[in-house]
Amino acid sequence: MEHAVVLAGGSGTRFWPESRTSRSKQFLDLTGGGPMIRETLDRLRPVVPSERLWIVAGRKDAPHLSPGALGLPKRNILLEPDGRNTAPAVALAAAVIARRDPDAVILATPADHAIGDVRAFRTVIRKGLRLARDTGRFVTLGVPPTHPSTGYGYIERGKPFPGRVKGAFAVARFTEKPDLATARRFLRSGRFDWNSGVFLFRADTFADRLSRFLPEVDRRIRDALRGGEKGFDRRLSEAYRRMPSISIDYGILEKEQGTLVLPADMGWSDLGTWRSLHEFLGEKGGNVTFGDVILADCRNTLVRTDGGLVAVLGMEDTVVVRCGDAVLVCPRSRSEDVKGIVGEIRRRYPALA
Amino acid sequence: MEHAVVLAGGSGTRFWPESRTSRSKQFLDLTGGGPMIRETLDRLRPVVPSERLWIVAGRKDAPHLSPGALGLPKRNILLEPDGRNTAPAVALAAAVIARRDPDAVILATPADHAIGDVRAFRTVIRKGLRLARDTGRFVTLGVPPTHPSTGYGYIERGKPFPGRVKGAFAVARFTEKPDLATARRFLRSGRFDWNSGVFLFRADTFADRLSRFLPEVDRRIRDALRGGEKGFDRRLSEAYRRMPSISIDYGILEKEQGTLVLPADMGWSDLGTWRSLHEFLGEKGGNVTFGDVILADCRNTLVRTDGGLVAVLGMEDTVVVRCGDAVLVCPRSRSEDVKGIVGEIRRRYPALA
Repeated sequence: MEHAVVLAGGSGTRFWPESRTSRSKQFLDLTGGGPMIRETLDRLRPVVPSERLWIVAGRKDAPHLSPGALGLPKRNILLEPDGRNTAPAVALAAAVIARRDPDAVILATPADHAIGDVRAFRTVIRKGLRLARDTGRFVTLGVPPTHPSTGYGYIERGKPFPGRVKGAFAVARFTEKPDLATARRFLRSGRFDWNSGVFLFRADTFADRLSRFLPEVDRRIRDALRGGEKGFDRRLSEAYRRMPSISIDYGILEKEQGTLVLPADMGWSDLGTWRSLHEFLGEKGGNVTFGDVILADCRNTLVRTDGGLVAVLGMEDTVVVRCGDAVLVCPRSRSEDVKGIVGEIRRRYPALA
Repeated sequence: MEHAVVLAGGSGTRFWPESRTSRSKQFLDLTGGGPMIRETLDRLRPVVPSERLWIVAGRKDAPHLSPGALGLPKRNILLEPDGRNTAPAVALAAAVIARRDPDAVILATPADHAIGDVRAFRTVIRKGLRLARDTGRFVTLGVPPTHPSTGYGYIERGKPFPGRVKGAFAVARFTEKPDLATARRFLRSGRFDWNSGVFLFRADTFADRLSRFLPEVDRRIRDALRGGEKGFDRRLSEAYRRMPSISIDYGILEKEQGTLVLPADMGWSDLGTWRSLHEFLGEKGGNVTFGDVILADCRNTLVRTDGGLVAVLGMEDTVVVRCGDAVLVCPRSRSEDVKGIVGEIRRRYPALA
């Protein structure tokens, strides 16, 4: 059966002051459609029913994870003692799923990305699940780039992959975030897609590759699961204490031969910064506001407030966010650097970080 | 004896969100030295003792006018039913003072200006009081301009005025706020001072000119004062209902022949906008902050908060003010336009205006 695993272990600082140590990006309502994790689940639900939707999150985030509000069984929420990047998180979920459904096909996705064209997304994940089941290969979703972003990883397409599911390609290679010249070359070539972070695989394939490429992660997850419910939390804490921290991309996908990519134009954004939120929501050069905001003579400006009035006069290309007891003002172009000042905020105003 | 009248009838909107309908500029602590009206009184006190310090303010501002906090007798606080510009305010105070002290020499000053060099200010007002007493003329304080401001009125100096008090000139003319080309010409000529709004006169001189130049104001103030304490408030309301609204500059000083100007380099600013506050407090190009503020890579920026944290990253020439439940962001160069958006705030968020 099809399963989906939503990876909700992130601890973003780039959306300060809305994101805080105690409230990561995936629990924010950035687009106005509700908390991102709920949007992610709702986007999947017509393809994968609630009883086969899974979340992997940190124990510290348990207060944000009401099964009722999220619409899935409590046992489908897996809590990691600490964050160890994506490979252990996926390994934990895949192992739990495989014990209940050895024939599972699994989609794994970040909890905090945005999809503008949900219909296109659902079409491509249906194809991707079929492709992963048919071939036993890893399948990644690629996003045809619209501009030479230096903030995303890229996937180079190889040969078209023949078979029942149309539109797939062999992966020629994964690349890290490129510099601008490289990103421009990628865009011109027409052979590169952005790495959306969504990938699909059969449980048996995953188990095989995990034992081969990440044997320590495999062993520690097995140790934790051995012995049933009783004492599981304690065993998991023990397993995570020495768990390597490694991403699924680096630990498995880049080592695996034969991975496929399905390109999908689905209005995807990783919403990595205030700027990318503004780009996702607004028209080019337009303003985007949330809450009680007065704008006069502004252009290309994002203003959000969760209470109280924010009046902005004569500003361009600016981000203004008021959240609770904190306000941020910066140029759109400096959105990447917000995480940098959160360090100073942690030192000087720990309650506000 | 010497008396000083502090004119506190203003109702500024240019310092929104700190100034509100219910809290005018003169009651704000803009420079960090306490409410402006108290700073103004304290600045005068070594020259004019508390029992001869007077305030003229609006009845609506009575809650801000605690005699204890301001350090002057309750009867020295004169409350106008409504604002009618400065001529009726000065006329009211001058008439009340003259009844108790017919030989009074009076200094009148706005409540909401800033003086950087208080010692120079005290020196010049001592001279001014002596000059007004000796000559029976109106004396104004001029400020040698430091830049071609288009936001101030100017006074052209005529011939040096001979006598015991050195440094005074006959006033050749008062001018309105000039355009930039004119302001530059004024600055180059070396013959012009900014009009500080501080002026000095003998009570008998004032009474004479008021009856001559503004007979209606004179008559209505007399009517209100006739008959003692009992029913005074009611009679004053009656008098103000039909009181002309006119400034002392326009109504008397510009008609009067023989007015003198005493130039004084005393670090004066009318603090007319957030920008001028920034210029008064900061070094050229420097940042000025009040409250819990984190700045990173900012230049020439003013940031104030009365609660909660404001983090500003990578901004130049910007004003950010958080006060209570409102936030303002604008370029320094648009400070003049803040009053313009207060109209929209009044309509849409009356509680915040």
